[in-house]
Parts: sequence; structure tokens; C-alpha cells
Amino acid sequence: MEGAESEATRIMIAVNESSIKGYPHASISSHGAFDWTLRKIVRSNPSGFKLLFLHVQVPDEDGFDDMDSIYASPEDFRDMKHRDKSRGLHLLEYFVGRSHEIGVPSEAWIKRGDPKEVICHEVKRVQPDLLVVGSRGLGPFQRVFVGTVSEFCVKHADCPVVTIKRKEDETPSDPVDD
Amino acid sequence: MEGAESEATRIMIAVNESSIKGYPHASISSHGAFDWTLRKIVRSNPSGFKLLFLHVQVPDEDGFDDMDSIYASPEDFRDMKHRDKSRGLHLLEYFVGRSHEIGVPSEAWIKRGDPKEVICHEVKRVQPDLLVVGSRGLGPFQRVFVGTVSEFCVKHADCPVVTIKRKEDETPSDPVDD
Repeated sequence: MEGAESEATRIMIAVNESSIKGYPHASISSHGAFDWTLRKIVRSNPSGFKLLFLHVQVPDEDGFDDMDSIYASPEDFRDMKHRDKSRGLHLLEYFVGRSHEIGVPSEAWIKRGDPKEVICHEVKRVQPDLLVVGSRGLGPFQRVFVGTVSEFCVKHADCPVVTIKRKEDETPSDPVDD
Repeated sequence: MEGAESEATRIMIAVNESSIKGYPHASISSHGAFDWTLRKIVRSNPSGFKLLFLHVQVPDEDGFDDMDSIYASPEDFRDMKHRDKSRGLHLLEYFVGRSHEIGVPSEAWIKRGDPKEVICHEVKRVQPDLLVVGSRGLGPFQRVFVGTVSEFCVKHADCPVVTIKRKEDETPSDPVDD
């Protein structure tokens, strides 16, 4: 059905860090999106696919991400930026590492900005065959206040999009957390 | 990555007939959804997947589907129902036949009712891993008047959903046609 030379299916997966305090890992819904892609789509055919991991870092409006710290000099801000960047790299390293173990080719990169806008912009630029986004699966009431990246992407991204909802038994005590 | 005994990924594909007069085949967007699934997801791994084709027939509100005919007896209505049913079977036969050629296991069935409601109901019942629906890719103005099955399914279906938009060069002269 496909020659050895046929191009791999390029799947972009938007990943972010957990918002749970003290949990320095990928968010629950990013994990869900990644695991679903491997289990349900890639399966035993890793060479048929290429995973493209995009992590969008959100610049803080006031520059203070961590209220427990005191920033008193330009160097502090530079350090903070470095730290953010290295956190993002750590996140991508995890996904690229797991893909490598399984034998699926992958690429990963970081952008800064509004996640929903940046994801749609990157879809236009790299033209994946499919975009996979995790979702907290919030109810309509919670959704009004937090907005959802996945809903925006389903509407506006220039490629097929699949949203993977977090399982109920994975919901943390505050469902807005992820 | 998967044992021989691991369960196949079950992909439900909602298919319908073309609305183009005199074109007795699958709609353009049904074709698009099916082809995308084969080319981008199934690829060279047919035994990893099972395709579930659902065709929903819409009962006419007044019972007159074909205004060129005259229905004058209960038998006429019965005949019409038979004819509708055989048209639907012909449609499914096409998709099952193509799947068989490629070696992907498949199943197909017909239901009657409002497509969006029936699709979501069948998703709940058969619990596929992914629902693929074609879409005409109508603009907001056209969408208001025709409604879209895909938007409803994305919101309400109880499984991940991917919408495959019709390509621009496949759009018939009336974009509401399919």
C-alpha cells in the first residue's frame, strides 16, 4: 500500500508543562495526546510517521512567573528567561527521547506567544498532516473562564485536528490544573 | 511496540451519498475522509486497524424523495424504502470492497435518522477509537443555512473526532453540493 519512499505522515503534537505546583513534568493532557498517538495511530509502524513536538511558552504579562523569588537586577530577568527556556527544553527532551526509544522519527521546537495563535501559525508554516492537541475536557462553566486552546485550533488550524480529552480518573483535584 | 494480540485501532467513518444530481456515488467529502484515513493513518499497516463505516439515511419529512415520481399507494412507499435501502447498501459495498482489496478489516451498517444525532449515538454504542467525518468546508455564511454534521460531532461525540475538509479543487459548482 505504500512504497518505502512514500513520505511519512507528519503529526504535530502540541505539548506543555503541567500547571500543578511542584510537578515539573509534561501536563496530563500532553501525555494523553502523545500516548494516544502512539497507541492508536503509530502502533507497530514507527517508520510511517514523524512526530513534530511544539511547545509554546507563554510570556508572563508582568515578568514575574514565580512569586516566591525576588528579581532585583537585569541579570535576574536574564536568568529567569534562561530557566524558562531550559524548562521547555527539558519537556521536549522527554518527548523526543521517548519517540527515539520507540523508533519514531521526531522533531521538536519552542515558540513564545499565545499558544492557540502560535499553534495555528506553526501549522500554516510546517503543514502537518494532523495536529493532535490534548484537552482538559472542562465543562462549559469552567471553559468560559479559562478558554480552550483545543477548541480554537479545531476551528482555525489549517489541517485536520484531533482533540484528546483527559480521562476522568486523571483529573487532578482542581480540574483547571493539568 | 504492539503484540500480535493487541487490539486493532477502530476507526469509524461516517459516509453518505453524493447530493449531486445524477451522481449515484459516495459524496466527495466521504471519499476524502476515507482516502485520508488510508493514506495518512492506516498506511502499510492494515492489520493494525479496523474500519467501521456508518451510513445514516435521512427519512424525508414528507416521504417524497424523488419529485419526478408519483406515489399513489402503500406499495409505492414500500418500494421507495427498498430502493433507498439498496442505494445505501451499494454505497457501503463500495467502501467495504475497497477496504477488502487493501486488506483492512471493516464493518458497515445503515441507520435512519438525523445524521448528527445518529452518529453520536452510534459512537456511544460501538466506542471507536477515532471518528473520521468529511466536511464540505463551507464558509460561515453557507454554514448557517445548512448546518454541519462535523461541527456537531466534534462537540458531542464521545470519542476523538477528526474532520477532513474537502479540497478546494474538489468543490462542485454549488459548494453546498457534495
